[in-house]
Amino acid sequence: MNIIALLTDFGLTDHFAGSVKASILDINPEANIVDISHNVPRGDVFLGAFSLLLSFRDFPKGTIFVTVIDPGVGSGRAAIAVKCGPYFFIGPDNGVLSLACEKNGAHASVRKLENKKFFRTSVSGTFHGRDIFGPVAAHLSKGADFEKLGPMQKTFLHCQKPSTLVKADKIQGIVAYIDHFGNCITSIEQSHLKKMSGRRIHISIKSKKLIPLCKCYNDVPEGNSLGVIGSAGFLEISVNCGNAAIDLNLKHGDSVDVAFI
Amino acid sequence: MNIIALLTDFGLTDHFAGSVKASILDINPEANIVDISHNVPRGDVFLGAFSLLLSFRDFPKGTIFVTVIDPGVGSGRAAIAVKCGPYFFIGPDNGVLSLACEKNGAHASVRKLENKKFFRTSVSGTFHGRDIFGPVAAHLSKGADFEKLGPMQKTFLHCQKPSTLVKADKIQGIVAYIDHFGNCITSIEQSHLKKMSGRRIHISIKSKKLIPLCKCYNDVPEGNSLGVIGSAGFLEISVNCGNAAIDLNLKHGDSVDVAFI
Amino acid sequence: MNIIALLTDFGLTDHFAGSVKASILDINPEANIVDISHNVPRGDVFLGAFSLLLSFRDFPKGTIFVTVIDPGVGSGRAAIAVKCGPYFFIGPDNGVLSLACEKNGAHASVRKLENKKFFRTSVSGTFHGRDIFGPVAAHLSKGADFEKLGPMQKTFLHCQKPSTLVKADKIQGIVAYIDHFGNCITSIEQSHLKKMSGRRIHISIKSKKLIPLCKCYNDVPEGNSLGVIGSAGFLEISVNCGNAAIDLNLKHGDSVDVAFI
Repeated sequence: MNIIALLTDFGLTDHFAGSVKASILDINPEANIVDISHNVPRGDVFLGAFSLLLSFRDFPKGTIFVTVIDPGVGSGRAAIAVKCGPYFFIGPDNGVLSLACEKNGAHASVRKLENKKFFRTSVSGTFHGRDIFGPVAAHLSKGADFEKLGPMQKTFLHCQKPSTLVKADKIQGIVAYIDHFGNCITSIEQSHLKKMSGRRIHISIKSKKLIPLCKCYNDVPEGNSLGVIGSAGFLEISVNCGNAAIDLNLKHGDSVDVAFI
Repeated sequence: MNIIALLTDFGLTDHFAGSVKASILDINPEANIVDISHNVPRGDVFLGAFSLLLSFRDFPKGTIFVTVIDPGVGSGRAAIAVKCGPYFFIGPDNGVLSLACEKNGAHASVRKLENKKFFRTSVSGTFHGRDIFGPVAAHLSKGADFEKLGPMQKTFLHCQKPSTLVKADKIQGIVAYIDHFGNCITSIEQSHLKKMSGRRIHISIKSKKLIPLCKCYNDVPEGNSLGVIGSAGFLEISVNCGNAAIDLNLKHGDSVDVAFI
Repeated sequence: MNIIALLTDFGLTDHFAGSVKASILDINPEANIVDISHNVPRGDVFLGAFSLLLSFRDFPKGTIFVTVIDPGVGSGRAAIAVKCGPYFFIGPDNGVLSLACEKNGAHASVRKLENKKFFRTSVSGTFHGRDIFGPVAAHLSKGADFEKLGPMQKTFLHCQKPSTLVKADKIQGIVAYIDHFGNCITSIEQSHLKKMSGRRIHISIKSKKLIPLCKCYNDVPEGNSLGVIGSAGFLEISVNCGNAAIDLNLKHGDSVDVAFI
């Protein structure tokens, strides 16, 4: 039985996430539903896409991701399902699925969700999580044919990838995501750094402060800043027992550079 | 296997919601528990009742709703279970179950929860979610007879319905609920509007601003306000890609009128 | 099938709690996972320990608690599993498991988590919830031998117990935990009070205000303060339909005394 993983901007105060689960369980009472988060900032397609990128590889093969950051709900934007590597991704065709699918590497097969047989009987103009995305995921988890979801679509919208520039002796990236602990996850990946293995590394933030690359937060004294390869394989700027975003005054888009010497 | 759906004002910081689930699973390890929300404002019986009204029809037949907004816990207020249409509703007899049951239309059969066989062995004076409501739901989900929960009660407390006045050429309602996106859900229902189908509609907020009735948020340019029939069948005041409550300065109880011309 | 109960400081905005669940379900797709809370204040080992103390006895025998408040992740601190009474506790060896294990009374058998067979294939330096604690819990829930998790460890770190002084005619305690409703849970236990049964009781807060001991919040008029034995067996300072922490200006560590007369 495949897992259905939910990532939305619905928040946890209203009934929305519960109603999506209800619509899934109505179709597949055995569905195993896991929340990734319902607290993506409202309508922020990039942060939704990046959150999916950070998490999807932690899930077992066959997981069906339902990703609903959907400010264009009910309008002309397409609803899609993407089969990519061992996973299925379902959501609006607005870029929210793209970072995970690109990272996956494998060929992405895209279907436009048009087969109403897999929708809720009545489809509203404002809540496709409950009426389309959840039900389609439920049917997939019960073994429905991916090919029957709707017509093939050649490609799908990609959101802008966070900027990373790899040069011979330098990598230039940005702060792409700030987590609950204030850790600043950058667009620089472990694979970029590995190419330079054996060389000494300087990390600089906003072209100024230099910090060391460490293995874990406690490699520096409490209150000191550090770089670390985070749990999803991205360079992360942190402060041991502190909050890097606040302590170092970092925000989304700030530049982070790695120099090799 | 019936779903047990939880709606409370316990918040998500303490262990309370987890302890209710523990008490359910202790009795029925196979229970399928779904959170509607644990973030109903503390002790707000009306918003709890309205939240249940907005969500209950999304759940499969047979769902058992455990609704604990219970400022009178441990006092003389009764604990009840209501069988109404295809659903069971469990909670304090303080009005929190009434809007959903009324909407359901069907005859409501009420039992006062007095059969201690279905309670936790030890019942505290402050946490009936864990000690009474959760366990009763767990027993019901295992097939316990509704009739054995306790003596029949003729009726149960109703909370005040949000004001809606339907006239020949006008419907007067109020903002009843504001969601996470700032959408203002009114007391005016789709069924009220349908009676006037074929006639042109004017929506006015606080007797002033006029806005159009649309099918989805994107029917107006970004930043513009609109009315839309929301996912639970109520007229909703929204701002495309905005926050209607903030942008239009709307709050609970503000008047919303629909005129037919 | 044992329950796996999660208590962390991961918050509900990032994917962390979802990724722990993914790592558990990857190993044991049948695992029954229950959230206690993911909103323990960041890195606050004492509040994590107290939250576990308040909740663990509500769970069925055999429950496996995964408690990740772990500011020292990746450093030299040990990762442990503790078998104590009918429960298993898994987490960092930093004191977070100690209050629950002490309360349990039973002998605590401790293993240092060193058998990599039970870890995720690749272990990061920053996310042992996903890479070690979750996987070990999943293997335990599938029947892995506790003894095979790693070498025996004689003892484990204990966090400081909240101060309580029991005298012949007086008990001196402190506010140990403040819940979502503003109820102030003290370090004074029901068992302390029972020894004095039959005698009249005076509760005083910060050496001044006197309040009565009641059975439930509604035993005093709305807005009045009271003491009550809370749902986990601790004396709680509350305000009926109010917020005791705000209304009485109470915070963690403030003194609460009970005098017998």
